Amino acid sequence: MADRRVMAVKSGGEAGFAEWRDCFAALDPSLELLYWDEALRRPAEIDYALVWDPEPGALARFPRLRVIFGSGAGVDGILLDPDLPRHLPIVRMAIPEAAQRMGEFCCWAVLSLLKEARRLAIAQSKGEWDYFEPPYRAEMRSVGVLGLGAMGTRSAEMLRALGFPVLGWSRTRKTLPGVESFAGAAELPAFLARTDILVCLLPATPETRHIVRAETLAMLPPGAAYVGIGRGSHHVLEDVLAALDGGRLSGAVLDVFEPEPLPASHPLWRHPRAIVTPHVASLPTRAERAGFVARAIAAFERGEPLPNLFDPARGY
Amino acid sequence: MADRRVMAVKSGGEAGFAEWRDCFAALDPSLELLYWDEALRRPAEIDYALVWDPEPGALARFPRLRVIFGSGAGVDGILLDPDLPRHLPIVRMAIPEAAQRMGEFCCWAVLSLLKEARRLAIAQSKGEWDYFEPPYRAEMRSVGVLGLGAMGTRSAEMLRALGFPVLGWSRTRKTLPGVESFAGAAELPAFLARTDILVCLLPATPETRHIVRAETLAMLPPGAAYVGIGRGSHHVLEDVLAALDGGRLSGAVLDVFEPEPLPASHPLWRHPRAIVTPHVASLPTRAERAGFVARAIAAFERGEPLPNLFDPARGY
Ligand SMILES: NC(=O)c1ccc[n+]([C@@H]2O[C@H](COP(=O)([O-])OP(=O)(O)OC[C@H]3O[C@@H](n4cnc5c(N)ncnc54)[C@H](OP(=O)(O)O)[C@@H]3O)[C@@H](O)[C@H]2O)c1
Ligand SMILES: NC(=O)c1ccc[n+]([C@@H]2O[C@H](COP(=O)([O-])OP(=O)(O)OC[C@H]3O[C@@H](n4cnc5c(N)ncnc54)[C@H](OP(=O)(O)O)[C@@H]3O)[C@@H](O)[C@H]2O)c1
Repeated sequence: MADRRVMAVKSGGEAGFAEWRDCFAALDPSLELLYWDEALRRPAEIDYALVWDPEPGALARFPRLRVIFGSGAGVDGILLDPDLPRHLPIVRMAIPEAAQRMGEFCCWAVLSLLKEARRLAIAQSKGEWDYFEPPYRAEMRSVGVLGLGAMGTRSAEMLRALGFPVLGWSRTRKTLPGVESFAGAAELPAFLARTDILVCLLPATPETRHIVRAETLAMLPPGAAYVGIGRGSHHVLEDVLAALDGGRLSGAVLDVFEPEPLPASHPLWRHPRAIVTPHVASLPTRAERAGFVARAIAAFERGEPLPNLFDPARGY
Repeated sequence: MADRRVMAVKSGGEAGFAEWRDCFAALDPSLELLYWDEALRRPAEIDYALVWDPEPGALARFPRLRVIFGSGAGVDGILLDPDLPRHLPIVRMAIPEAAQRMGEFCCWAVLSLLKEARRLAIAQSKGEWDYFEPPYRAEMRSVGVLGLGAMGTRSAEMLRALGFPVLGWSRTRKTLPGVESFAGAAELPAFLARTDILVCLLPATPETRHIVRAETLAMLPPGAAYVGIGRGSHHVLEDVLAALDGGRLSGAVLDVFEPEPLPASHPLWRHPRAIVTPHVASLPTRAERAGFVARAIAAFERGEPLPNLFDPARGY
């Protein structure tokens, strides 16, 4: 029994669990997986937890827990727990497949704004041949990416390849080919003044909460556009709506909200210049994610460092 | 009077004419522009014609006409004229800005299929949070581009940069970095068998007419998708519809039709897996196009060869 290793899973419900189990059975057959409800009944057996939004207090009930794995790129759902065992390492999912999927969605969103896809979709829904001449080429619209982590970096690279001028904003300065780097709060106004299409790919932290609000939207050039694909906490949705109606924003693509789902009655769903999607920007398959977790566990058990750890000092 | 040079314009109607005149006034002030109706009243004065779809017989009425300029990439609207003065050079618009705009639209269309944008748009129209997990990354879906001319080449390059495996089909074999080349009718079946997302960027010729029809669609892998952005003559729309309904095609983006506009009653407008757009894939601005024509006229008048000529033997 000394070698028994058990991982509790709360991500994707029961259907998700069956898939996770199949993936790990192929990758690490001796790792035992427990569905969350079962894990809560047998807390003393749990070594690892793979979770998206564990209920507050739950993780603290596992006395042998050694590592917490976030099942998505953002671990904000885990940090919400006031009783989170803060001494334990939290591994954030960071896989190239997720960054690639995000880059694809980001390019789709930015091109949708360039080509006025929302206008095209509304015309289609009416069976109307609404011919018009989209004014811009990629070269004429700069894209400013808030957050140059795994997601932001790949997105910036793909946008560059499409011909967009790209700027990036992060805590520390970056040197990415063809991407103009802005760093820290002091450089945010200069970054926004130069950004035609603003993309948010920051982590959800107290500093980044409501970073996209009336005051910062007003720093964008008139007619700018916004792509919100990080977290719902990043934007004040009413301010985005007001900017769309007032003309400061010519368009928006929003995939993340607070709370989710966005209520059916919210006016954004029907806005003629907003595209609303249900948090689908980047979801790597369970097979892709299980591979990352299995490799991290193997490294950990060999005594090697865990990859992509959550840093409490930074907040992400 | 010997140096007087007059160009008749039929492209974009009266509003378009005012814009063409302003563009040429800046580029070649001594070139006189005549609006089409006026040109037809003063046929003896016309040296050049800049046209999209001249009425049959009109061009033959200009005795001094020296060069015909197509105002778009395809000159099929000009070739429809049975009395076309066949001895005159026809210059096809070929500008990098047009290829770039097409590449952007093509990437938008292909990403729209990858991310199931039609499903997302329908959910939005109902205010429905329709969460689902798009299965594919770019790497898992090969894109086959029919036609590797100016438009197809730039599109292929941009698709590659997004991570799609890309195949191309043309009359003559190509060597484009990262693009597998198929040439001629004999290699079309092999090309189609390997194509998950089929993009048509051929010219409209008798050989390419109805190239996308039940028989060729059946050569694609089940669940393939189609992006029709060349000309409406390339596809049999009823076959595309049947393939969408029968499951051979999982989705389609269509920008070109025969005739245009697509009638409001056509079932494609309402199809749950088809995106319909009103021939907007690539329309460079008049300023971008006027620059190309002005440079071509200057070259012609210096006795240099005209660029990008229509070749009657090839048919494009
Ligand atoms: N919509 C979806 O489907 C979806 C899917 C996956 C992920 N996401 C979200 O995407 C976001 C990005 O994920 P990631 O994995 O790329 O994150 P990451 O690797 O942690 O990168 C975070 C980036 O933000 C920068 N940053 C953090 N705090 C900052 C501050 N106060 N000021 C300036 N820059 C700051 C960091 O700067 P430094 O580089 O200087 O540290 C870094 O460049 C997350 O919010 C994640 O939840 C959304
Ligand atoms: N939807 C829109 O808004 C829009 C806007 C602009 C253009 N277009 C359309 O886009 C299309 C492409 O324009 P383009 O300027 O790229 O054309 P292009 O430069 O003339 O290129 C044509 C390509 O098709 C290939 N081809 C022609 N006939 C063929 C045949 N029978 N079999 C195999 N390959 C054949 C040619 O092969 P080779 O290279 O071997 O000669 C070439 O690669 C045109 O139909 C144009 O009308 C649409």
